[in-house]
Amino acid sequence: MEKTELKDDKSKEVEEEQVVSPWEVSAKDGGKIDYDKLIDKFGCQRLDESLIQRVQRLTNRAPHVFLRRGVFFAHRDFNDILDSYEKGEKFYLYTGRGPSSEALHLGHLIPFMFTKYLQDAFKVPLVIQLTDDEKCMWKNLSVEESQRLARENAKDIIACGFDISKTFIFSDFDYVGGAFYKNMVRVAKCVTYNKVVGIFGFTGEDHIGKVSFPPVQAVPSFPSSFPHIFGNENIRCLIPCAIDQDPYFRMTRDVAPRIGYHKPALIESSFFPALQGENGKMSASDPNSAIYVTDSAKEIKNKINRYAFSGGRDSIELHRKYGANLEVDIPFKYLGFFLDDDAELEHIREEYGSGRMLTGEIKKRLVEVLTDLVERHRRARAAVTDEFVTRDCHSSYAYKNNVKKMDLWLD
Amino acid sequence: MEKTELKDDKSKEVEEEQVVSPWEVSAKDGGKIDYDKLIDKFGCQRLDESLIQRVQRLTNRAPHVFLRRGVFFAHRDFNDILDSYEKGEKFYLYTGRGPSSEALHLGHLIPFMFTKYLQDAFKVPLVIQLTDDEKCMWKNLSVEESQRLARENAKDIIACGFDISKTFIFSDFDYVGGAFYKNMVRVAKCVTYNKVVGIFGFTGEDHIGKVSFPPVQAVPSFPSSFPHIFGNENIRCLIPCAIDQDPYFRMTRDVAPRIGYHKPALIESSFFPALQGENGKMSASDPNSAIYVTDSAKEIKNKINRYAFSGGRDSIELHRKYGANLEVDIPFKYLGFFLDDDAELEHIREEYGSGRMLTGEIKKRLVEVLTDLVERHRRARAAVTDEFVTRDCHSSYAYKNNVKKMDLWLD
Repeated sequence: MEKTELKDDKSKEVEEEQVVSPWEVSAKDGGKIDYDKLIDKFGCQRLDESLIQRVQRLTNRAPHVFLRRGVFFAHRDFNDILDSYEKGEKFYLYTGRGPSSEALHLGHLIPFMFTKYLQDAFKVPLVIQLTDDEKCMWKNLSVEESQRLARENAKDIIACGFDISKTFIFSDFDYVGGAFYKNMVRVAKCVTYNKVVGIFGFTGEDHIGKVSFPPVQAVPSFPSSFPHIFGNENIRCLIPCAIDQDPYFRMTRDVAPRIGYHKPALIESSFFPALQGENGKMSASDPNSAIYVTDSAKEIKNKINRYAFSGGRDSIELHRKYGANLEVDIPFKYLGFFLDDDAELEHIREEYGSGRMLTGEIKKRLVEVLTDLVERHRRARAAVTDEFVTRDCHSSYAYKNNVKKMDLWLD
Repeated sequence: MEKTELKDDKSKEVEEEQVVSPWEVSAKDGGKIDYDKLIDKFGCQRLDESLIQRVQRLTNRAPHVFLRRGVFFAHRDFNDILDSYEKGEKFYLYTGRGPSSEALHLGHLIPFMFTKYLQDAFKVPLVIQLTDDEKCMWKNLSVEESQRLARENAKDIIACGFDISKTFIFSDFDYVGGAFYKNMVRVAKCVTYNKVVGIFGFTGEDHIGKVSFPPVQAVPSFPSSFPHIFGNENIRCLIPCAIDQDPYFRMTRDVAPRIGYHKPALIESSFFPALQGENGKMSASDPNSAIYVTDSAKEIKNKINRYAFSGGRDSIELHRKYGANLEVDIPFKYLGFFLDDDAELEHIREEYGSGRMLTGEIKKRLVEVLTDLVERHRRARAAVTDEFVTRDCHSSYAYKNNVKKMDLWLD
């Protein structure tokens, strides 16, 4: 357990090498993110092998590929969640998305794919927050455009196949108010302006919408923000998210006990690399930096063949001699995320790493894997109607006896 | 019309003499507030005689005593409101209260009494905001206690006799959300942290709840915050309030045109003096500094006789010779607020000012006037049930065909 969670770390000033905040992720000198350093700096814990084995024991199923391969690599109090689960106590999951773009790329899907696994494995309720208010304020979108993007993104999220009878998806513009707003006020009272400057790096020229926002992302960590789901139960919350969201929840964990709630636990992922390599950035302004869930089979093939950074050598002779550099090879890394078969991945590691397999061959396999994934997603998303989104975003819990489980894919 | 409405005036620093902000009102060297200076500094306009006569003409009734006697003495764009009213265009009224105490004193009633007059005279809709969230954050009350005080205060407000078919009373904890929250975000995007520091004097050690609050008080100025009342009508808003609330609405007026709304107009009052004199303060910690609407006839008589600062002379002989000093005499000032009869007030001015009337006599008259007012208020408030508050605070507009006009007093 951390000693001082809210330590005004001033990410940008103290540490000039790498910046990881909810709005900026950049490594030292354009290199790779140093996750060990990040764990140290944020004060979270490494998700070690014994914890993964404990998950397997408790859930009686194989750990998700994102656990086995270290995609989710850090946590806060995840062991406490497992302790209480073992004692038969309930908990719930909370994740979210800032709907700033119409189409999601593969990196966006990762927390949702993992959250679906957690929901299925532990059979727990889930709340998903779409921070359309945040994107309206940060990206200078209109309220209406932010809401439209939230609805579009909700379809992609629903397509991930959550147990809809246990899932509440909401957008802030729809849901802020009532018990949720009361918790926002309770949190805001406990955090000074200087604190948020320390945590998030705001300046005096930032608008007050930004200063007001952290409590909005904090309060879904508290079950009383959802009285229609949890009533008065003060149950624990587990948040699967990318590690750049950690600052919000450091703040939340600092405040929680002061207002009578459990600290939320976290399970945190590393970042999904751009096609151009781990020091590249997936950028909305460069569609060739990422595979989108809207990409056609042809686009996927083209992007991977043309843009996926290869660790293969400059000539076949050199490649056969030295083998691929797997440390930088994007097709191999992507397979690490999306090829579930451990034996096959191990086979590729050996064959490609030793030079017996060529870049074209591994890229071909990756194209197959991603085309299949994107195609299944596309079909699942097409089945999500506007009416379903309305019902699901607003009152899935009211409808829980009327809708069937939405296992469209990934099971 | 002002040129630069939002001028970062840093009240507390630039002007060391008098401080007027939503949280502090103090005159220079413990003297009187200089309202001319305040008008200059805030950049509002004096409410002159010709404007009062125009109100009389347009409404076809005598101007309210608070207009005739200069209690409401300043405005912003009130003439624009009258222009559009003359053209047959609609407007609505917005006022409010921060529910920080259980019982209201006479000073608290002033904006509501005046708002009732405006509603009756112009026959317009009215929204009343109870900022329980603000008081929860500033006074460190619990959410529940703030809500309880809001409900208690709502009864006193309802007792002022508004046309309930045209009045929507809401507390922020109940109502923030939906269209209202969207407008909060739209406003927050337009105001930097440096701006609110300039306007409100926040410091880095203030919690972010304070920084987040100004948009909450701003957005009732926009009709789209009340879609159940105004639909899509972009009608004008007139805000009757004490002049210490001006900073909120300077900010609001600066933002309004940037997000497609009319600037709200204002009509602003001076401060109601404490029993101990104009340089005294009505203070919740000193119940003898004010007359409360819960005071008994005996308490009113006792407070006025013992504590009301008198401009009478030290001996009857001196009093007969010089007459009372009306400039500092609290009984005479209070009668200026609450004795509607101009002729009688003029008579008292002459008799008391010349020394023919003694302090005991004017105090006796004031006791009569206030006992009557408080007794009528007490009766009206007793008729306001909890059920009525619930119905009224939450959905008076939904009920408008079912409830009758609530003219309990003041007509």
